[in-house]
Amino acid sequence: MGAITGNEFLHRINQQNTEIWLDGQQVKGPISEHPAFKGLLKTKASLYDLQMAPSHSPIMTYASPVSNEQIGISYLQPKTKADLLKRRVMTEQWARLTCGLLGRSPDYLNTVIMSFACSSPFLLGKDNCFPEHIQALYERARENDLSFTHTFVTPQVNRSMSAFNTSDEPISAKIIGSTSEGLIIKGAKLLATQGGVTDEVFVFSTPSFLGDPDEAFAFSIPSDTKGLRFICRESFVGGESAFNYPLSSRFEELDAIVVFDEVIVPWERVFFHHNSEVAANFFSMSSFHPFATHQVITRQIVKTEFLLSLAEQLVQTINAGEYLHIQEKLSEIIIGLETMKALRDKSEADAAIDQWGYMCPSPVPLKVASNIFPKIYPRFSEIIQLIGASGMVALPTVNDFQSPIQPDLAKYLQGAAKTAEDRVQLFRLAWDLTMSAFGTRQTQYERYFFGDPVRLAGNLSKSYPKDQGQDMIDRLLSRYE
Amino acid sequence: MGAITGNEFLHRINQQNTEIWLDGQQVKGPISEHPAFKGLLKTKASLYDLQMAPSHSPIMTYASPVSNEQIGISYLQPKTKADLLKRRVMTEQWARLTCGLLGRSPDYLNTVIMSFACSSPFLLGKDNCFPEHIQALYERARENDLSFTHTFVTPQVNRSMSAFNTSDEPISAKIIGSTSEGLIIKGAKLLATQGGVTDEVFVFSTPSFLGDPDEAFAFSIPSDTKGLRFICRESFVGGESAFNYPLSSRFEELDAIVVFDEVIVPWERVFFHHNSEVAANFFSMSSFHPFATHQVITRQIVKTEFLLSLAEQLVQTINAGEYLHIQEKLSEIIIGLETMKALRDKSEADAAIDQWGYMCPSPVPLKVASNIFPKIYPRFSEIIQLIGASGMVALPTVNDFQSPIQPDLAKYLQGAAKTAEDRVQLFRLAWDLTMSAFGTRQTQYERYFFGDPVRLAGNLSKSYPKDQGQDMIDRLLSRYE
Amino acid sequence: MGAITGNEFLHRINQQNTEIWLDGQQVKGPISEHPAFKGLLKTKASLYDLQMAPSHSPIMTYASPVSNEQIGISYLQPKTKADLLKRRVMTEQWARLTCGLLGRSPDYLNTVIMSFACSSPFLLGKDNCFPEHIQALYERARENDLSFTHTFVTPQVNRSMSAFNTSDEPISAKIIGSTSEGLIIKGAKLLATQGGVTDEVFVFSTPSFLGDPDEAFAFSIPSDTKGLRFICRESFVGGESAFNYPLSSRFEELDAIVVFDEVIVPWERVFFHHNSEVAANFFSMSSFHPFATHQVITRQIVKTEFLLSLAEQLVQTINAGEYLHIQEKLSEIIIGLETMKALRDKSEADAAIDQWGYMCPSPVPLKVASNIFPKIYPRFSEIIQLIGASGMVALPTVNDFQSPIQPDLAKYLQGAAKTAEDRVQLFRLAWDLTMSAFGTRQTQYERYFFGDPVRLAGNLSKSYPKDQGQDMIDRLLSRYE
Amino acid sequence: MGAITGNEFLHRINQQNTEIWLDGQQVKGPISEHPAFKGLLKTKASLYDLQMAPSHSPIMTYASPVSNEQIGISYLQPKTKADLLKRRVMTEQWARLTCGLLGRSPDYLNTVIMSFACSSPFLLGKDNCFPEHIQALYERARENDLSFTHTFVTPQVNRSMSAFNTSDEPISAKIIGSTSEGLIIKGAKLLATQGGVTDEVFVFSTPSFLGDPDEAFAFSIPSDTKGLRFICRESFVGGESAFNYPLSSRFEELDAIVVFDEVIVPWERVFFHHNSEVAANFFSMSSFHPFATHQVITRQIVKTEFLLSLAEQLVQTINAGEYLHIQEKLSEIIIGLETMKALRDKSEADAAIDQWGYMCPSPVPLKVASNIFPKIYPRFSEIIQLIGASGMVALPTVNDFQSPIQPDLAKYLQGAAKTAEDRVQLFRLAWDLTMSAFGTRQTQYERYFFGDPVRLAGNLSKSYPKDQGQDMIDRLLSRYE
Repeated sequence: MGAITGNEFLHRINQQNTEIWLDGQQVKGPISEHPAFKGLLKTKASLYDLQMAPSHSPIMTYASPVSNEQIGISYLQPKTKADLLKRRVMTEQWARLTCGLLGRSPDYLNTVIMSFACSSPFLLGKDNCFPEHIQALYERARENDLSFTHTFVTPQVNRSMSAFNTSDEPISAKIIGSTSEGLIIKGAKLLATQGGVTDEVFVFSTPSFLGDPDEAFAFSIPSDTKGLRFICRESFVGGESAFNYPLSSRFEELDAIVVFDEVIVPWERVFFHHNSEVAANFFSMSSFHPFATHQVITRQIVKTEFLLSLAEQLVQTINAGEYLHIQEKLSEIIIGLETMKALRDKSEADAAIDQWGYMCPSPVPLKVASNIFPKIYPRFSEIIQLIGASGMVALPTVNDFQSPIQPDLAKYLQGAAKTAEDRVQLFRLAWDLTMSAFGTRQTQYERYFFGDPVRLAGNLSKSYPKDQGQDMIDRLLSRYE
Repeated sequence: MGAITGNEFLHRINQQNTEIWLDGQQVKGPISEHPAFKGLLKTKASLYDLQMAPSHSPIMTYASPVSNEQIGISYLQPKTKADLLKRRVMTEQWARLTCGLLGRSPDYLNTVIMSFACSSPFLLGKDNCFPEHIQALYERARENDLSFTHTFVTPQVNRSMSAFNTSDEPISAKIIGSTSEGLIIKGAKLLATQGGVTDEVFVFSTPSFLGDPDEAFAFSIPSDTKGLRFICRESFVGGESAFNYPLSSRFEELDAIVVFDEVIVPWERVFFHHNSEVAANFFSMSSFHPFATHQVITRQIVKTEFLLSLAEQLVQTINAGEYLHIQEKLSEIIIGLETMKALRDKSEADAAIDQWGYMCPSPVPLKVASNIFPKIYPRFSEIIQLIGASGMVALPTVNDFQSPIQPDLAKYLQGAAKTAEDRVQLFRLAWDLTMSAFGTRQTQYERYFFGDPVRLAGNLSKSYPKDQGQDMIDRLLSRYE
Repeated sequence: MGAITGNEFLHRINQQNTEIWLDGQQVKGPISEHPAFKGLLKTKASLYDLQMAPSHSPIMTYASPVSNEQIGISYLQPKTKADLLKRRVMTEQWARLTCGLLGRSPDYLNTVIMSFACSSPFLLGKDNCFPEHIQALYERARENDLSFTHTFVTPQVNRSMSAFNTSDEPISAKIIGSTSEGLIIKGAKLLATQGGVTDEVFVFSTPSFLGDPDEAFAFSIPSDTKGLRFICRESFVGGESAFNYPLSSRFEELDAIVVFDEVIVPWERVFFHHNSEVAANFFSMSSFHPFATHQVITRQIVKTEFLLSLAEQLVQTINAGEYLHIQEKLSEIIIGLETMKALRDKSEADAAIDQWGYMCPSPVPLKVASNIFPKIYPRFSEIIQLIGASGMVALPTVNDFQSPIQPDLAKYLQGAAKTAEDRVQLFRLAWDLTMSAFGTRQTQYERYFFGDPVRLAGNLSKSYPKDQGQDMIDRLLSRYE
Repeated sequence: MGAITGNEFLHRINQQNTEIWLDGQQVKGPISEHPAFKGLLKTKASLYDLQMAPSHSPIMTYASPVSNEQIGISYLQPKTKADLLKRRVMTEQWARLTCGLLGRSPDYLNTVIMSFACSSPFLLGKDNCFPEHIQALYERARENDLSFTHTFVTPQVNRSMSAFNTSDEPISAKIIGSTSEGLIIKGAKLLATQGGVTDEVFVFSTPSFLGDPDEAFAFSIPSDTKGLRFICRESFVGGESAFNYPLSSRFEELDAIVVFDEVIVPWERVFFHHNSEVAANFFSMSSFHPFATHQVITRQIVKTEFLLSLAEQLVQTINAGEYLHIQEKLSEIIIGLETMKALRDKSEADAAIDQWGYMCPSPVPLKVASNIFPKIYPRFSEIIQLIGASGMVALPTVNDFQSPIQPDLAKYLQGAAKTAEDRVQLFRLAWDLTMSAFGTRQTQYERYFFGDPVRLAGNLSKSYPKDQGQDMIDRLLSRYE
């Protein structure tokens, strides 16, 4: 069928019979009408509509190599730098429609699956590995424009370095047996964003240090597979009003705990199992990191552009641009934005054909960017709060503006160059981005997207060649009298 | 009547007929049963009950100098260091009952009014000044245990240094005339925290640079004075459940814009009017700053103790105490806490009798503390988020724990030394303190409580004697060969 | 004659009869043998030798368009991105020979003069402007491989915004008259690095706000022009030993105050005079900033590579690499290095033909880099000190290692994988880079190279387009119900 | 003899025949005339003179309990808070004479020895312990006003957690045998500041983890004991001129490596030996830390006052006080200063009688202060450099001002309210404090005085009671519906 429209997407998701729990209730009825999901699904539908719009179809889709259909560029396996650029432009388009706020816009996991297919030959000839299943998934996804989430985090009972699980029952999801049909999985994985509202869920699992081979596997299954259960956190949709909650009403992506209650995973959907070495190495050896990070950084750049313009709008609204400390705050965002752009550009400029024949972005600049953004995004959020200052605290609602007290608000809350209503709307946007439960979850999301920042720095330090200046030291130290 | 109980307080507030607007609706019915106010008012009632409890009455009240009644120590005008210590202990008691989260616990404004009464002789003999009205207010408040809020911030249409109001209608509240009854006030003031749910509102106004003497005044009037209107921001009460929203269900204080719709202020309630010099100087010359800051810093110290124990609980729950970077984060809070305590203690140790005969805390250490806390509190909030990490994102609700999926949660969300329910409850507390709309408003509140941090630093720098080491420089520079 | 060798350079400088003052004495005799200058001049000679070495000549020189000579690539006016890359490679070569520590390696000012020649048409037809003199200087410099310094900073008697000079005598250098021979200049300019030991000194002057047209001029004259006087600061050469002072013995560049004691500037050397508008605009409108910054950033990148390798060597020497906080410090340097490289690369990738037909690096990434480096370099210097820790304090000298106590040192100062002598030599290098008078001057130099950091941020903020995300905001705010 | 004069001190030090090595030469002749030591010894002599001056004797000395002599208050074992205050005032006096720059002003080690005597009963009845020798040392020191340094740092061959010494020969000083005369010590200790120019050197040694009991000992011996050798680092005295080097010419304290070449330590000078437990615990259990830190913090406060006044002088000289970012920098120093003062005051206010009957300052505020100062001092040094800016780079010398170019300097380097000479002298002071080799060693000294900052934070975090707010958490979590 090729790339889909918004309605096709909504229809497919509504058809699924996925087990989703929210605030102690199982979600029933068409999910696209549920208050916690409708804004998100409408937004996602708009992304699919964009790719089919005549104006954007040429830059969002390409011709399938196996059918006559146009398919999404997020599935394009790049062979040239021009292909890489096409991928970037596609991500930018979708990110601009969502202000970079949708962590699970479809291109993210499409990219992941594309990259796994690129690197699937890594699995060839290894025990319990089925690279052909990855390839099949990739083609099925690409030709049907499937949507995905993934889940891989182990429940964190204990963060101590010496701790390990001693309970009888599996806590982290593991293989507890198999049948002719497939593997049997029991236990849980944490934190599938958009868990339950995608076509499929992609699961991978790496045993922890000295771990159990039963915890080494990867597969993808439909969200409504029997025994699969998504337990959502509380919804952060503030309400239906886009005036009051300009962001959470549109972009709130629920996070879910994923429970496997003796789920049977059909053999043809298993990518590998019981191979701890492959589980430990596939993600670092494959092109997963460079391709996925290239998508993520591109989205984060758009988000930063959004933030910068928002900061500037706040400054203009209260006419504070003449203050040096305000200028310094804006310049901090500018420096962050240009740094991210330069690193992304460098990853493209230094891209090279990898061992499987694909044009892979240079990993080092992306790794550096992924060390930087988790630190600067929270600071940018703080800068928005510092510019908004006390103006962020007492914000009326759309109902206030439609009530008898509207004239008071119109008079007392006007801005230097804005009506009270426009000003309040803008400040509510700033509040929703940085101070609502939706906004703070965005901050935490960006802070931890790439993993524990302390470990990230350690990994960068250990993997980076630090001898580029060694010859200079040697020369200095060898020539003395 | 002297110090009151919680019920007396609730009765009095419910009796008032104050005009309060919330989300486009005027608030009707007993306010103590309104969802947006009931948690706060119940909490405030518990404060009043504490002062009347036999266990605490001796440290929370003292004998009125004019009646036989016990009255609240927040009204005590200190003459000795022992009096000052009594005041501190009283504030600590109330702060501990509210984890330091209630910016407008009654002692804050009681202290303000007490300090104005102390310094009221400053107004003696000055034009349009009525020190006897301050004294009368103080005695009425003290003997009836009145509760207050205050409001003084001018609507910020334009922050540019060269901007001034050119509209025909008053925006910032001003005197537009007078009658035999009193002054007529029209316009608005911003940001009365707990506006509408206190007995009275204390209003002061300072003309901005080159301003209008009609903007120079101070008075206190009942909240239900005719023409007085409180427009609340959206409520941040997350819901009724104390499991889900342990803080906002109890401590949410609404902020209100205060509109004066040709309010008549009776002459006997006017402290001064049409005296720009007094308006500009009374607050800096009086003992307002030292006494009020002494109360605030004491509350903030209790809040920091609360935060430190919470951080430690999180660390223990996920067993992360062995990590050096976790220890550094805890030590940051410890250093902040001990610094605040040392500065508070020094303000007491260096207290001195002021020109009006009262024992006034030393202002410099308090000024320094008020430069420090707006910077460290947001950092402490961030530390809580950094310790909680991904554990702050996917938190179930009390309903989840009372639903069929409870066994899943019990198994998959258990902590190293806590049940899943206890762990989730603790993390929800951390979330409500730092990431809910309630929590981020707390952060913004502490950040701006003392005013613009950039200006605070400038004021400290300009007012502080910087020549303590000048003799050392002179000696070094004078003796050279 | 084309590009010169080290000996040709030394000969030319020694031939000059420049008036240089140092520590109250006028410098006499061959300057290349003077203790304060010999290390620097030997190092500069090695740069010239490198360009003539058969191994490097192909990448350091190109054929003169007007003669048969090979001339230095620092003079190449780039017309293509390949030319730009040649320029970068040339700067890298020289920077690697000096560890990026020589602020006035010849390519810096050669680049400045090259850029002025590129943009000289800007002066065409403007009052008192002589673009042909710039062109002539450029050709003379290029064909004779002249070396330069520049000076433009006004003596800072008073930094107050409202201050201006009221003395009778000129303080800042100004035109006090003219003759048939040329302009007469009197007064001073601050801070010519390497002042007195270059062939010529390039002088430009911009009147301050509301200033005097007599202060608007630009020219270049030989260092030994009559009436020109260079007053050096104290030399920071620690001593002759390259073991003890591996950096200052080689790279110390003296800074000088430049006094114009009624200096006559021949007309053919005047670029413009008495044109305040041109003085104010030529530097910002010309390609000076992009070309010069491209050279500077390239040098700073090499310096950062040097620093990173040094940090790593220290870590290995004391075997401290396993500590997470050490890894974080290394990763800070790595992030800085990769950021600078990415921005430099982007300036090249986005280079474009300017209005005068030259391939000009994109200015924004360079401007961002010049906001970043003044902040990260001092931090990197601090990181070196933090890694070296107490090991930086008690360092013996080469004489100690050649004395009877050598066996004590050999035993008690050995490193995990280094002899005591090697270890001490390495730590002395770290000390000379960050803690000697030479090293701290390097830090201050990088901190202020691009001007006042606060103003830099302001300029970036004001000049940068901040509306890249405006459409996203507009879309969000326009669609609400 | 009691407290001594400067001359008595100089005479005694000159009489010693200590083996000191500097730059490969053994130091010969009267040490008070040696260029590397004369400034320091003259400064120390001035401290002794101060205590004997009639103006200061009453606050610097007290009557010996065993003789008729006046003895130094640094030896006073405090029994009351008044005694503690006397100690503080004494330290302030000496610190003000040295701008807080002398780490080893005599009161530092006098305090250490006083505290060991206070806690010597801790050693009673323990193996190989001689508390009576500590007491004897204390009395001898007190009655003769002896001066000391100490040394305890182990040579750091390898910082890895798993490293230990495997060489045959001792590296870290250890007991290699004993005779009837005493213990025989061989090996080295690092970093005795002022090593060689004090009457005695106090040595203590703690075996590292799983270490050798031969490394567990403590004693004090005269600096000229046979076999004892002090190897100094390079001197940082810039020169004799107090105009050029206002600090290093007066306050440079050399650091020395201490070599024990089979030194015999007489039994009556041994405090303990071969008792690893005592070695591990005596310093933490005794009153050493609180008393010593009380002295150190008091000195650091004076140093900060010196820095603040210097910063202010720089600001005034260039008339930069109107800039907000300058005001913020000054306020940073003020906040640091007041914080240190408040913590010191709190340690005195909360002082209590310890188990041995002495009035011991409260340790927690001192521990907090010792976590703060190593971070703020380097920042203050940076602030001085940021205020001085480019003015720190090109500073003439006293010779310049006495040469023919003096008129140029007088004109071109004048300040807003200072002559050129006064301005340069002030800036040279700022340079010597923060940018000379002397100044950066000061920074490193304060940074590491209390040990590794990362470990300091860990220790504070682990030792501090973090349950002060636990009851608030318990109450919140127990009451939910």
